Amino acid sequence: MNANALPRLAVTAGEPAGVGPELLIRLAATSLAANFVAVTDRRLLERAAARCGAAIRLIDDDGLPVDHRDPGTLRVRHVDLGAPETPGHPDPANAQHVLSTLLEAADGCMAGRYDAVVTAPLQKASINDAGVRFSGHTEFFAEHSRSQVVMMLASPELRVALATTHLPLSRVPAAITAEGLQKTLHIVHDEMRAKFAIAQPRIAVLGLNPHAGEDGHLGREELDIIIPVLDALRAQGMTLIGPMPADTAFVPAQRSRYDAVLAMYHDQALPVLKSEAFDRTVNLTLGLPFIRTSVDHGTALDLAGTGRADPSSLIAAVTMALDLIARRRAA
Amino acid sequence: MNANALPRLAVTAGEPAGVGPELLIRLAATSLAANFVAVTDRRLLERAAARCGAAIRLIDDDGLPVDHRDPGTLRVRHVDLGAPETPGHPDPANAQHVLSTLLEAADGCMAGRYDAVVTAPLQKASINDAGVRFSGHTEFFAEHSRSQVVMMLASPELRVALATTHLPLSRVPAAITAEGLQKTLHIVHDEMRAKFAIAQPRIAVLGLNPHAGEDGHLGREELDIIIPVLDALRAQGMTLIGPMPADTAFVPAQRSRYDAVLAMYHDQALPVLKSEAFDRTVNLTLGLPFIRTSVDHGTALDLAGTGRADPSSLIAAVTMALDLIARRRAA
Repeated sequence: MNANALPRLAVTAGEPAGVGPELLIRLAATSLAANFVAVTDRRLLERAAARCGAAIRLIDDDGLPVDHRDPGTLRVRHVDLGAPETPGHPDPANAQHVLSTLLEAADGCMAGRYDAVVTAPLQKASINDAGVRFSGHTEFFAEHSRSQVVMMLASPELRVALATTHLPLSRVPAAITAEGLQKTLHIVHDEMRAKFAIAQPRIAVLGLNPHAGEDGHLGREELDIIIPVLDALRAQGMTLIGPMPADTAFVPAQRSRYDAVLAMYHDQALPVLKSEAFDRTVNLTLGLPFIRTSVDHGTALDLAGTGRADPSSLIAAVTMALDLIARRRAA
Repeated sequence: MNANALPRLAVTAGEPAGVGPELLIRLAATSLAANFVAVTDRRLLERAAARCGAAIRLIDDDGLPVDHRDPGTLRVRHVDLGAPETPGHPDPANAQHVLSTLLEAADGCMAGRYDAVVTAPLQKASINDAGVRFSGHTEFFAEHSRSQVVMMLASPELRVALATTHLPLSRVPAAITAEGLQKTLHIVHDEMRAKFAIAQPRIAVLGLNPHAGEDGHLGREELDIIIPVLDALRAQGMTLIGPMPADTAFVPAQRSRYDAVLAMYHDQALPVLKSEAFDRTVNLTLGLPFIRTSVDHGTALDLAGTGRADPSSLIAAVTMALDLIARRRAA
């Protein structure tokens, strides 16, 4: 491989009727040192550029390394749309197109044609309306690559992995099992090493209950499940802190003690992350055989077509992917 | 009442063997414009001052208004200790002493002898060890004044009231009832008016589930309980926002929309508050017939006696109480 070659990032446009295509145009306008390969329909990008009032030069991707990219240029791996897009109105006729872009990105990463994939938001319901069982990017990539995955949300200042994700709160306690927690911690530990190049990652594990259960006075899951799992994994060599009370785990004096936090559920940690770094929060999938980052927002159908969508989150997702690629190269 | 009189604050020392007495000495050293009346044993304060290496001039409180306080002076409402303190080692022989200081502070507030009470931390277990049923300051004041109360944690930037407080997570969903939520919101609404002097308070109410249930896909409590309660209370004239997803409720763009947040449970909101304002977070009891604020930390038995405890939280609690007194006077 050419040592000066720019990292090759597959960037999917997500839902054609959402803000994704316009965000790719805004991304292309930056001077970020990356070879972006937009995996989508060329004509969709041209129309998105017109809606943004932006000049764009599209280059069919030939797969060769490049060591320079001019702002305003974008390489394209063309994937046919099923039907022309109407901004703001997803069309199930494009469900197969969206899935094809994900397959190309995933297979391309696994074959080494891309160094990472960064995804723009898609519209789950529109894919389901086409009769396709589909519950999201993360699950799709996991299934396609036969991987067990963990969702991580990260800003430059804080990394949070989740033991459970989109569950009603009443179903969270039963979902915290010793087996599940062990698997999750193995994935987080291994990926902090493999993807973040941290040789001995320090992982802070939150308790499930307030005050981490206060010795059983406020719930027993810490004593019955979490502490035994942490002890067993420490004996295997992991550096684990906790279970920590969630309310004090994020204070400045604690942050220097860990490289990542494992929260037991969605609303225990994401409010902290988003309140301090809303535009800079990136969704990262741990456990895949490739680097995948994503914007942390939806298709914003009300903004689609206006050219006004804010690319901050996509730029943050790209920046995170580039950082991970650089860590891997340096390791 | 003398218009120039300083606000009269009853300040309890909490557990004699904890950091409370030393924190009162540090508080006295500030130039805060308040007439602090330490409700505790005079000799305990003298010994705490010696441990801090600080000069203190104690003045027996005569109940008269004063319009000036020199730093390093403190008025005292003497309450006999049961036994001399040993820093770091709470003695159940002092349980009755601690309770007597709370009674004096509460009764004094209700009789108008104090404008507010600010409490230093006590040791629940030591009071229980003396054979007294006692579950904390908040419950004690509520029972003594026959009030229904709501716990609020507040920093200068963010006010969070809690629909449930110290419960195992598995018991939270069942604890969110229409009746309970209505009572809680009435107290928060009334107290934002009475204590914060906000004529038409805007209260943001968080959902119980991630993404506030996402229209029932991630839990039904929003549809079945929270939304109907909010609609009913809006019809009575309250300004209520939500149910809001917890992960985006605290982003900067949202904060200007509300005066306070009602969170459904402890770890949904306190991590945000404490991560951004650990030393400035104050515990406030809404619903009492008087102003009561408190430090947001424990007795720190390991630090007691060293003179090194940090008075930031007590100073923040005092500052909040003074702000509320000023709002009441101006209203």
